[in-house]
Amino acid sequence: MNFTPEQRAAVYEAIHNRRDIRKFSPTELEEDKVQRILLAGHHAPSVGFMQPWDFILISSSSQKEALALAADKERRALAIHFAAEGRDDKFLQLKVEGLREAPLTVCITCDPTRGGDHVLGRNSIPETDILSVACAIQNMWLAAYAEGIAMGWVSFYKKSDVRRILAIPPHVEPVALLSFGYTDHYPKRPILEESGWAKRTNFDSLIHHETW
Amino acid sequence: MNFTPEQRAAVYEAIHNRRDIRKFSPTELEEDKVQRILLAGHHAPSVGFMQPWDFILISSSSQKEALALAADKERRALAIHFAAEGRDDKFLQLKVEGLREAPLTVCITCDPTRGGDHVLGRNSIPETDILSVACAIQNMWLAAYAEGIAMGWVSFYKKSDVRRILAIPPHVEPVALLSFGYTDHYPKRPILEESGWAKRTNFDSLIHHETW
Repeated sequence: MNFTPEQRAAVYEAIHNRRDIRKFSPTELEEDKVQRILLAGHHAPSVGFMQPWDFILISSSSQKEALALAADKERRALAIHFAAEGRDDKFLQLKVEGLREAPLTVCITCDPTRGGDHVLGRNSIPETDILSVACAIQNMWLAAYAEGIAMGWVSFYKKSDVRRILAIPPHVEPVALLSFGYTDHYPKRPILEESGWAKRTNFDSLIHHETW
Repeated sequence: MNFTPEQRAAVYEAIHNRRDIRKFSPTELEEDKVQRILLAGHHAPSVGFMQPWDFILISSSSQKEALALAADKERRALAIHFAAEGRDDKFLQLKVEGLREAPLTVCITCDPTRGGDHVLGRNSIPETDILSVACAIQNMWLAAYAEGIAMGWVSFYKKSDVRRILAIPPHVEPVALLSFGYTDHYPKRPILEESGWAKRTNFDSLIHHETW
């Protein structure tokens, strides 16, 4: 602890400027940077120190193609719902994943059986296992930013498809597909804000005192 | 982006040295630091930019006491399960929360209805809403570290108790109670590792290539 103002500013810069990216250049990633990003994930907090995560690194063309096809199926299925709301034109213009282009995609998983029957603090709230995995994802995102590497979180897929493609055991949850790569355009604002899809909520409206 | 080695090191220091704290000193927290920590939470990624979080700030003695009683009920209930495993002695020695001592506790919640019926990317994986809230928690944890403030994530409670005490609407999920305060002892290793409760998993055993 006891950060200097410069160190503190670096943490806030990563937190505030981190973006969700879908366009990647083909430049390969340096192995040491990838290792540091993964290690940042492994150093996330986890309920009862259960560390429920695994990391599957995907860089072969055949596996990337299989995941991209699974994601595209889901994207087209979702377009039908947005069509009913009259938002399908805007939706279909959005690029929702960069699985083919990204030199590396990591599937981060959650094994709910890790740590035995009674993981400290998970008895009361079982989903704290996947919440721990989400903390690992955020660590990886900030680490990637610090390394000058872009990351995109893809959540367009059926879990059963990803489980089959990556041979994930039936009891293990694929929590996210995370694409990593360099990018030519790292936007200042969230891409869904830039594209007019959604707005940032007013901060003060989210703060309550003593009760809701 | 384009961090200097010093800026990058600051991000990694926060990620690697952040600990889950249960002992707090009574020193009050500065308002500007608290605001920056909460704002770091609000700048987390969220599925479809839905920003499902709210922040309930608790600092009154009566509310702290009510939450502490709810947590203690859950702790004693859990001790019964650990007794069956012969681990109750060790469990009862662990301090699992600092709700009474911490000058500030924040309940972070998740409103699954925010953003309408079809939040982009949440159609396929509904729990991406609480995963977004977990990313906000991790941002707040790292921001707190950068501010020299300790944080503890309490997950010992029944949601129905917390909902009643904090008057949270029935459709909103209380995701976590986060205690904030200064501390005299910020341990180098996770407290569950220091106390011999659990060990850090070997990193290499968690890495897979192309498939599980």
